[in-house]
Amino acid sequence: MTDTQADVTANPAAAQPVLYEVRDSGVAVLTFNRPERMNGWGGGLAAGFYAGMDAAEADPDVRAIVVTGSGRAFCAGADMGDLSSISSASVDSAGEADLTKMVGERHPLFVTTVSKPIIAAINGACAGIGLTQALMCDIRFAAAGAKFTTSFVRRGLIAEYGISWILPKVVGWGAAMDLLMSGRVFYAEEALELGMVKEVVAPDELLARAVEYAEDIAANCAPSSLAVIKRQVYGDALREAADASQRAETLMHESMQRPDFIEGITAFFEKRPPNFPPLS
Amino acid sequence: MTDTQADVTANPAAAQPVLYEVRDSGVAVLTFNRPERMNGWGGGLAAGFYAGMDAAEADPDVRAIVVTGSGRAFCAGADMGDLSSISSASVDSAGEADLTKMVGERHPLFVTTVSKPIIAAINGACAGIGLTQALMCDIRFAAAGAKFTTSFVRRGLIAEYGISWILPKVVGWGAAMDLLMSGRVFYAEEALELGMVKEVVAPDELLARAVEYAEDIAANCAPSSLAVIKRQVYGDALREAADASQRAETLMHESMQRPDFIEGITAFFEKRPPNFPPLS
Amino acid sequence: MTDTQADVTANPAAAQPVLYEVRDSGVAVLTFNRPERMNGWGGGLAAGFYAGMDAAEADPDVRAIVVTGSGRAFCAGADMGDLSSISSASVDSAGEADLTKMVGERHPLFVTTVSKPIIAAINGACAGIGLTQALMCDIRFAAAGAKFTTSFVRRGLIAEYGISWILPKVVGWGAAMDLLMSGRVFYAEEALELGMVKEVVAPDELLARAVEYAEDIAANCAPSSLAVIKRQVYGDALREAADASQRAETLMHESMQRPDFIEGITAFFEKRPPNFPPLS
Repeated sequence: MTDTQADVTANPAAAQPVLYEVRDSGVAVLTFNRPERMNGWGGGLAAGFYAGMDAAEADPDVRAIVVTGSGRAFCAGADMGDLSSISSASVDSAGEADLTKMVGERHPLFVTTVSKPIIAAINGACAGIGLTQALMCDIRFAAAGAKFTTSFVRRGLIAEYGISWILPKVVGWGAAMDLLMSGRVFYAEEALELGMVKEVVAPDELLARAVEYAEDIAANCAPSSLAVIKRQVYGDALREAADASQRAETLMHESMQRPDFIEGITAFFEKRPPNFPPLS
Repeated sequence: MTDTQADVTANPAAAQPVLYEVRDSGVAVLTFNRPERMNGWGGGLAAGFYAGMDAAEADPDVRAIVVTGSGRAFCAGADMGDLSSISSASVDSAGEADLTKMVGERHPLFVTTVSKPIIAAINGACAGIGLTQALMCDIRFAAAGAKFTTSFVRRGLIAEYGISWILPKVVGWGAAMDLLMSGRVFYAEEALELGMVKEVVAPDELLARAVEYAEDIAANCAPSSLAVIKRQVYGDALREAADASQRAETLMHESMQRPDFIEGITAFFEKRPPNFPPLS
Repeated sequence: MTDTQADVTANPAAAQPVLYEVRDSGVAVLTFNRPERMNGWGGGLAAGFYAGMDAAEADPDVRAIVVTGSGRAFCAGADMGDLSSISSASVDSAGEADLTKMVGERHPLFVTTVSKPIIAAINGACAGIGLTQALMCDIRFAAAGAKFTTSFVRRGLIAEYGISWILPKVVGWGAAMDLLMSGRVFYAEEALELGMVKEVVAPDELLARAVEYAEDIAANCAPSSLAVIKRQVYGDALREAADASQRAETLMHESMQRPDFIEGITAFFEKRPPNFPPLS
């Protein structure tokens, strides 16, 4: 298998709102690609993102997914062109504005239901719904100096699409209230201190570092385990401890019936990398 | 409008257990003012706090609220005079002690239902129910060297009025257990590391810094957005992600019908400060 | 009372999978003692741990419990001998493998129901179910350089016995996903930054420091308060704030009927250490 850049082959890259590439290492890279609009969230970009995620989920060769942006922004929020038109529309025809034009058909949390780990490589401005989407990814790396803001409160908006659910879980209650109620700008370095991003990396090394991290997962972690553990973490948020532990026992029992377990233990004893089968 | 210091005008400041001041910038400052009792929580101080909060909530000119203390303490816990009398009473007449005398009529979490952001400027000792009250505020600043303790476990008491609910959400599970089960003293600097306070500030600059932060919110953030987002965060703690996101969509739709949204977007495009209407 | 080392008296220490010692200071120390197996979790070690915990819970002289390991490991996960035999068994006789042989009869969260504070002194390797067990302890100290890993995902296993419940609560959502989905190795120093451990201590001072911390609790904190507060924190995770606060008021009222409260307040006013009765 050689690297595929499906969309790029068919059309000039500049025309694709989201680039999709699968590397030999088992890592898919999705790149928001409307740099002239700061990768603003909107119809084309959102649709391309969903299509890329669906392709990555369906492809057995893909074991981890990296999301990044081209140009100066990761995703600077809702596309202002779209937002502006909705704004005018809402005045004249309350209730009729088609909000899906702005946010797309799916809520950002849909990526938490994808069975593969999703790593955001936040290359630049990450604001509004762009930040919500980044927070719904499992793990985040950021470029030094990348600019973040929740912004909603400064536009007369509200905490969009689950950020009031996920942000306190990621950074704690105090920081979440600060960032949501002030709408202030903060940078990658503070995001690191707050536990919002795992690492801050020099801008020109960001994607390579995020892909390297994803490749380690692709090479060494069982796809079946990744899928189960991701469901466990999100599902256990509202479970009693005893219920979570009881479910884990059942899931562990099931995992021990899979060849992945034998391979994991055998590889460990033989001090060699494991060779896990793809998710079936 | 000039600055108002209602209580101060009517009586000498020293007689008022809580000072209430509204600044031209839209920030109300409540000051615990029984320094000779280390601002111990009790009848008069609690009643003054509720009255101040009610006034701030009702006043359309108030957009953010700062809470601080005069003297060496923010609030060093239950007023020991009150506590001592309840202690004796409880031995002789079990079940008849009027606990409301000590803690006041409202539980500390009532401030989470106030629609405006509440910022604690912790100027000094912050202990017991004083710490619980500070943790129920949305955001905290602290003076360098300010002394904190949960203290309950060292007095034969329990985790009072919701601190066992809010503390793990603010500092994480491990630090919460440490602070609650040891009842040890810690200082502003550690509170900062734990994410309990947003910033540590030199004592003589603390109030100015907290007010500056509140003034930024008052000047740039829509009161309607602040009220909705505060409800979202507290309400989403026990919601499924999908439910939280669905509710956010409805709330976003509602926000887009308000003039605040048009003003927020217009001000952004015109690169000028927004001029949001007060909360109606 | 002199220090007791019950098991050690009856048999040579090397034969005991878990050592149990009660110190005059009111601190029980449980030591995983199969260093030649890296204190791998399994039948004998788990049974000894349960017996030690039951003894500590039942003994009124014990007010705090420290858990540590002998040799290079705290607990390096499931005993690989046991795991290997279960692995083979599961292939041939699906559903018949006796999983309790590996994990013991109780789930790690049982220690959250013990009424006394439990402090883990993580002296070395802490992996898999060993890490789950450490996270279910209330507070953690670690030796400099101690090695941690969740490991499950690299063995084809899942997030065992409640770690997907407790880890996000301790380190936040982002770090939990990183540690569970990569299964990477990390060290005590990073565990400290993540809030997973309270302090990192030089290896030869670790146990003394953890015992010193436990002794402060034993000497100064009311056993009745500790028992109630521990139940509050774990129980309030899924409660509404108002419910948690209402329950706290009832519990506070009850605590004020106990002699511990009078003693706590009196000792405070008399500036002397309190003399709390044991848990009845």
